[in-house]
Amino acid sequence: MKASQFFISTLKEAPADAEVVSHKLMMRAGMIKRLGAGIYNYMPMGLRVIRKVEAIIREEMNRAGAVELLMPVVQPAELWQETGRFDKMGPELMRVKDRHDRDFVIQPTSEEVVTDIARQELRSYKQLPKNFYHIQTKFRDERRPRFGVMRGREFTMKDAYSFDRDVPAATLSYQTMFDAYKRIFDRFGLQYRAVAADTGAIGGEISHEFQVIAETGEDAIVYCPGSDFAANIELAEGVPLLSQRAGATQALAKTATPGKSTCADVAMLLGLPLAQTVKSLVLATDELDERGDIKKTTVWLLLLRGDHDLNEVKTSKVEGLKAGFRFATVAEIEDHFGCKPGYLGPIGLKKPVKVIADRTVARMADFVCGANEPDFHLTGVNWGRDLPEPDVVADIRNVVEGDPSPDGQGVLAIQRGIEVGHVFLLGTKYSKDMNATFLDETGKPQLMVMGCYGIGVTRILGAAIEQNHDERGIIWPAAIAPFQVAICPIGYDRSVEVKAAADALHQELLDAGMDVILDDRGERPGAMFADWELIGVPQRVVISDRGLKEGALEVQGRREAEASKVAPAEVGAFVKARLSA
Amino acid sequence: MKASQFFISTLKEAPADAEVVSHKLMMRAGMIKRLGAGIYNYMPMGLRVIRKVEAIIREEMNRAGAVELLMPVVQPAELWQETGRFDKMGPELMRVKDRHDRDFVIQPTSEEVVTDIARQELRSYKQLPKNFYHIQTKFRDERRPRFGVMRGREFTMKDAYSFDRDVPAATLSYQTMFDAYKRIFDRFGLQYRAVAADTGAIGGEISHEFQVIAETGEDAIVYCPGSDFAANIELAEGVPLLSQRAGATQALAKTATPGKSTCADVAMLLGLPLAQTVKSLVLATDELDERGDIKKTTVWLLLLRGDHDLNEVKTSKVEGLKAGFRFATVAEIEDHFGCKPGYLGPIGLKKPVKVIADRTVARMADFVCGANEPDFHLTGVNWGRDLPEPDVVADIRNVVEGDPSPDGQGVLAIQRGIEVGHVFLLGTKYSKDMNATFLDETGKPQLMVMGCYGIGVTRILGAAIEQNHDERGIIWPAAIAPFQVAICPIGYDRSVEVKAAADALHQELLDAGMDVILDDRGERPGAMFADWELIGVPQRVVISDRGLKEGALEVQGRREAEASKVAPAEVGAFVKARLSA
Repeated sequence: MKASQFFISTLKEAPADAEVVSHKLMMRAGMIKRLGAGIYNYMPMGLRVIRKVEAIIREEMNRAGAVELLMPVVQPAELWQETGRFDKMGPELMRVKDRHDRDFVIQPTSEEVVTDIARQELRSYKQLPKNFYHIQTKFRDERRPRFGVMRGREFTMKDAYSFDRDVPAATLSYQTMFDAYKRIFDRFGLQYRAVAADTGAIGGEISHEFQVIAETGEDAIVYCPGSDFAANIELAEGVPLLSQRAGATQALAKTATPGKSTCADVAMLLGLPLAQTVKSLVLATDELDERGDIKKTTVWLLLLRGDHDLNEVKTSKVEGLKAGFRFATVAEIEDHFGCKPGYLGPIGLKKPVKVIADRTVARMADFVCGANEPDFHLTGVNWGRDLPEPDVVADIRNVVEGDPSPDGQGVLAIQRGIEVGHVFLLGTKYSKDMNATFLDETGKPQLMVMGCYGIGVTRILGAAIEQNHDERGIIWPAAIAPFQVAICPIGYDRSVEVKAAADALHQELLDAGMDVILDDRGERPGAMFADWELIGVPQRVVISDRGLKEGALEVQGRREAEASKVAPAEVGAFVKARLSA
Repeated sequence: MKASQFFISTLKEAPADAEVVSHKLMMRAGMIKRLGAGIYNYMPMGLRVIRKVEAIIREEMNRAGAVELLMPVVQPAELWQETGRFDKMGPELMRVKDRHDRDFVIQPTSEEVVTDIARQELRSYKQLPKNFYHIQTKFRDERRPRFGVMRGREFTMKDAYSFDRDVPAATLSYQTMFDAYKRIFDRFGLQYRAVAADTGAIGGEISHEFQVIAETGEDAIVYCPGSDFAANIELAEGVPLLSQRAGATQALAKTATPGKSTCADVAMLLGLPLAQTVKSLVLATDELDERGDIKKTTVWLLLLRGDHDLNEVKTSKVEGLKAGFRFATVAEIEDHFGCKPGYLGPIGLKKPVKVIADRTVARMADFVCGANEPDFHLTGVNWGRDLPEPDVVADIRNVVEGDPSPDGQGVLAIQRGIEVGHVFLLGTKYSKDMNATFLDETGKPQLMVMGCYGIGVTRILGAAIEQNHDERGIIWPAAIAPFQVAICPIGYDRSVEVKAAADALHQELLDAGMDVILDDRGERPGAMFADWELIGVPQRVVISDRGLKEGALEVQGRREAEASKVAPAEVGAFVKARLSA
């Protein structure tokens, strides 16, 4: 393609509202154009990337036996009422009324519609397994859309849904999708990890996230370099860091720690390692009566080692906290502990409090904690001797780098990641609500077991850029680059030789099936090179009179510091070889 | 592809709400599945057709120099307020509020958004001409959605928008699109006509519709077999059917026509040709004062030959009626004519009435019309002698078969058509409202001149079926068929020879780049054949033990009455030759 027949629009400066590098670079490279908060036009340069991403997804989904269809953007509310999501989902579900005042939603996903299709179309065990997918516009009315395509409101998603006769069959379908996702992300040319993940609001039984590795990622992903273990930090199991509890060696003592309300300050003051301290967090759960008024409030004391952080996802799985919890108010804390926050501890409570100790804390001896008295801490605290054993011992902390891997194969490392894919083994959550059954061999209706599998198509662009960029711009992996090669002729409009050589190379690469653009805009060389570096095209060929005369044209890979000099007759083969490498 | 890896779902009976044949057949063939009124799931079989239609459109749009982008489905109301369409459009424009109570629309088209892009991105005459298009989900909240994809609410449309520096340049862009559309519809393999059309609500200066010829079409399209003339009947010019007015030969006479209130009845009673009668239609226009109350009402008498019908689109272009008109009330008619409808005429009016004569009526002599007296008509009526010349002579009738072509090249014929494409030369309608200007050579801002060009992607499916079907089902043109060839093995699961032959042919056709499906579902032959006839696949190959033994396999074209017998070794080449023919 010639640039004059395309549309290139680059900017020197990113708009002020672009906070992250991918957003800045996509705006500057003319990939997207803002229409409203979280709503973007995909400009021609960006759309080319989207189409390549979609094509790879489609090929691998088809190869894995999934069947493509297309479900509507505007969906009748009735189905969403069957599952209760019409009411349960918050304002991120965009609701709309038609001219007859009937309720509709702008789809954020399509579980309801696809389950409706399945319950009508898949009537016999002979028709299972079946996996339907579509690549369609989605809308989520985010409270605070930001980061460009990373957290937009309108976006393109591939969502697939599998239907199986039982859990073992569904697990196979899940594995098939998991494998297809690995092929998809391999083909994108991105560094990624598939990590075990929490099933969260979508529910279900097993789930993995596909995380593109990037320092700017919102998620912390935990993995073991010596094994296959990989999980979102929300889920990654923290094993006890002490093999067993040591015996008490110190007496319990109260020590003044004026103004030292954090574990770090206390440890420094006392000249102790932070790992000898225990921090106290106070939660509350409310039991409601029939009228929705609070009948009873339970206060919970969570104990974590001073250098550890609370993991709220794991905490929400502790018996008693599953129905939801909140942080206790200062009044509740003072009422139960007789002390303001900063000096709290498990000894000397005024009122009953449920104590949950993290696995590691439960094995600590001679530890330091608040004395439930302002400006005082206790030292030499020991379970059993100074206070009863905790009510609950649980894994409630975030793992940290160097923790033992739960599979015993080494120690954990942590990277930042951007979630771009998510696979769920849903079970019968939706099929039960919508009575999606099939007839088994005996003619008996059975609930279908479902899986769902998403890839954020437009989000891939942002994640790829967060991972692959430098100070000059984007560095696209070849498989999803808007163009693979940019031919940059210097003097295309005045040198017959340059024009002939550029046109010939353009045609040669086109004939070889490459995605090539010939920059015939007549820009100055510096501006032209800067554009293609910003846009991030993998290979650039400069064709100049001098290069032709000297028999050495410059071919530069986007990641290379220096250009290669290549004889004009060999440039085509050289570029082809590079891109097929 | 093997059928077992795809999804085939056919029905014996169409649902009761399917009124037209394309809707019935699409439902029965499992191409679409109803989700709500005018909202359909595109099932795998239907989506394959959509993708082929889209691919052809995309190739030809790109070839014509248009550049693809993607504009959002959910669009901020602000831009729609700039052009006034947010308020002016009726309830077919679906409006929605976000969580912050801001107004949005679900796009029915994208003039506003693309003009917003153009005014920001196209700043210099050097960047013009430019044509942007997208293929995107659209929504129109039709009052009465029906006919399946023919008048749905959610649908896929390709819409393109050209931007030019002046009308001559825009006319060139228009012609380029017109030519691209011809290539697109040629490639679809559909019978169609490009006809001059009214610009209607979208406004603008020139417009053509691309109409797929089908007896069931909603539109009447007029063409001249001996020339290029073709127009929607709304626009097709009616020339005077009489070369000049004859002299009067009869005296004016009043004749009793009791109970004969139609021209046909009067002509029969009097033994005269219908073409000797003139019918009277009464319109009214209201002039409003500042408060919106009616200040003055003008009554208009329209005179048409007895065998002609009023054309409201042309009528709306007559001076005085352009701002809108209504049919007069019975009270207004009695007040002005002193007579109830059925016996009205231009002679003996009680109050001033503006008389508009159709071109043909203006040249009639000795005609018959109502006497403005119940149960009486006048005969031998002549202009000038019996009544003044009409206030206005205009083309206000629908042309009929056999009328002279306005280009003088023969007589007109009429066909029914389904509008699937529409091109408009818009002019500056949108660029003026949105102040979309570019700088010309002198640095002066000038309004961009626009064109817009739509193809109803999903509607193409319905139109293709309305044109191509028989009692057994759909007959797809090869270019847009979901599959080009269906291989139907008899005994795939029990005959080694049949399986080997079917698999080999499947692979041979796949290798040749054909879109082939091997039906391995194990259906009985009759049901299998009926499915592929219903689905409308162009070529069917039956592979049976008997056929293999006898050295003669059956290859049947969907339109053929009899199958061809082909030697097994030659079937691949035979089918390839047929589909490339």
